Amino acid sequence: MPEPTKPLLRALAGEAVWPPPMWLMRQAGRYLPEYRAVRAGVPDFIALCTSPDLAAEVTLQPIRRFGFDAAILFSDILILPWALGHGLEFKEGEGPVLPKLRDAAGLAALDPARVSDKVAPVMETVRRVRTGLAQEGFDRTALIGFAGAPFTVACYMVEGGGSRDFAATRALAYADPGLFGGLMDMLTEATIGYLSAQVDAGAEVLMLFDSWAGVLSPSLFRTHAIAPAARIVSELNRRHPGVPVIGFPRLAGLMIGEYASVGARAIGMDTSMDLSRAAAVVPADVALQGNLDPMALVAGGAALATETSRILQAMQGRPFIFNLGHGIVPQTPPEHVAALVEQVRAA
Amino acid sequence: MPEPTKPLLRALAGEAVWPPPMWLMRQAGRYLPEYRAVRAGVPDFIALCTSPDLAAEVTLQPIRRFGFDAAILFSDILILPWALGHGLEFKEGEGPVLPKLRDAAGLAALDPARVSDKVAPVMETVRRVRTGLAQEGFDRTALIGFAGAPFTVACYMVEGGGSRDFAATRALAYADPGLFGGLMDMLTEATIGYLSAQVDAGAEVLMLFDSWAGVLSPSLFRTHAIAPAARIVSELNRRHPGVPVIGFPRLAGLMIGEYASVGARAIGMDTSMDLSRAAAVVPADVALQGNLDPMALVAGGAALATETSRILQAMQGRPFIFNLGHGIVPQTPPEHVAALVEQVRAA
Repeated sequence: MPEPTKPLLRALAGEAVWPPPMWLMRQAGRYLPEYRAVRAGVPDFIALCTSPDLAAEVTLQPIRRFGFDAAILFSDILILPWALGHGLEFKEGEGPVLPKLRDAAGLAALDPARVSDKVAPVMETVRRVRTGLAQEGFDRTALIGFAGAPFTVACYMVEGGGSRDFAATRALAYADPGLFGGLMDMLTEATIGYLSAQVDAGAEVLMLFDSWAGVLSPSLFRTHAIAPAARIVSELNRRHPGVPVIGFPRLAGLMIGEYASVGARAIGMDTSMDLSRAAAVVPADVALQGNLDPMALVAGGAALATETSRILQAMQGRPFIFNLGHGIVPQTPPEHVAALVEQVRAA
Repeated sequence: MPEPTKPLLRALAGEAVWPPPMWLMRQAGRYLPEYRAVRAGVPDFIALCTSPDLAAEVTLQPIRRFGFDAAILFSDILILPWALGHGLEFKEGEGPVLPKLRDAAGLAALDPARVSDKVAPVMETVRRVRTGLAQEGFDRTALIGFAGAPFTVACYMVEGGGSRDFAATRALAYADPGLFGGLMDMLTEATIGYLSAQVDAGAEVLMLFDSWAGVLSPSLFRTHAIAPAARIVSELNRRHPGVPVIGFPRLAGLMIGEYASVGARAIGMDTSMDLSRAAAVVPADVALQGNLDPMALVAGGAALATETSRILQAMQGRPFIFNLGHGIVPQTPPEHVAALVEQVRAA
């Protein structure tokens, strides 16, 4: 394979690119007026995710404004369970609402065979973004495809929506390991197929979001966060050698070093992570990605500059990808993002 | 000072007591029918916290049932801001509701001078529990007093209630460090006075609950979790030599070793903590406390036994206090607690 030239791909190959490549989680989102304009024209969030022209457009918007080093497919981690036949609705101001999967009948109702038809519009979005990036001259910007990690997706399916601690999911994992394991296995295999199709459509990097891994005890973390991620990464590496995977086990805390064993080329760091400590337990050629507090970006000014400097200082000399520690929030002033980009580019 | 004889105090003095002393966070609570009977007779939760006869009664209930090594004062971390004059209401099924402190006027309205009168019933509860333990022959059970850590209390005061990520609190901490620092300083000093009064009333151990420390970036964690805890512990040690403090920085993750510098005699571990890894970064004479997943206790059976064994195995030979990683939940069958006690006592 030729040496990668895009900064993100170089960092993922283990190079300490400096200034570091940067992008922001949820960079295509409500803090941008041009996003809100597109969003206002569709009936609901799923319609936006499954309209390739609109999804490609909002994916490209933040690249045009800020020239980020990555465009990330505009979609949602719950598109996969939706494609498996699990119900999904996004209620304004309430987040996702799903049926609660708590028994064997709920699991049996899922149908992996229908996924590829249902996610065809997502693959079309990937193709259009890849073409769009080239046509608009964004030669340094890499395209990231993504999926929710099986545990996080299972959380929403079992709980029926968001939760502070996903207590019902953990209870099911303890009380009925057969059923929960069956759900996890199905999601793991479906995730491999879904991510693999994104590579076929043009994704250059893949990211696995385990947003709720941090609610797991260490033993369940090994079973339901590390093992599925290792399986997914290893199978993707077999099918698509050279396509790097970024793992993001949010709130993994002390487990972060052990998670690094899954074979990802970068590990996402949530806001709470001390980067120097994480760097000490993650292999030196695996990039770290993160982890500015989105609320520092809302505040702007001195707080933003100070927190950003701390991160840059801790990571200089190491493969690193500048990002937030969690998704950008709607009340973020776009001019604060511009100031952040300027500071990171000047590092 | 004489050598302590109660198992909890011995563990807090650095002894690897085995089987380990045990108690459960929120052990006086809704999972117990005798608690629900008392709760049904009072108009609201604050009335229960400020009725010494009832609060002492519910504090003692789990000791009578399970013979735990610690009784923990029945109260709430929001009693302190309530005593400072900040509004507080507990709405059924919704949790606490408070005014939102976001400006200098909100801070100026708090009055530390009124705290000691307002918390007088809490001190009376402490006295009655201490007397009750002796009268009922619970000679091995130590009495723990507690407070919320300043950051966690500030979270509820700024946010106006619970939250998944306390975004408004973090935003205020970044955007107006003067105001937020002023609030933190006032809470820190008020917490010292409040905990010191609990010792005067008979508390033998103090615990500082920083339930939301984990939402902080590392730099804010140092400023708003570690520094106030260090100040509180050092001043309490000066006023009450020999009275141990347990620190509980929930979801501290990689910061746990640094938090150990605050001088606490034990560090509480949340459910996500890998105990062996935590033990490697916390000094060997500082006890660890935790960290069974409350949902494993709900599940019972093999899952409960396995998770409990893992914890016991990891901690044998080290000063350790068996506990949950988070409060016991209302749907916990009391017979699962009995089975847990039996397993830990047989260790």
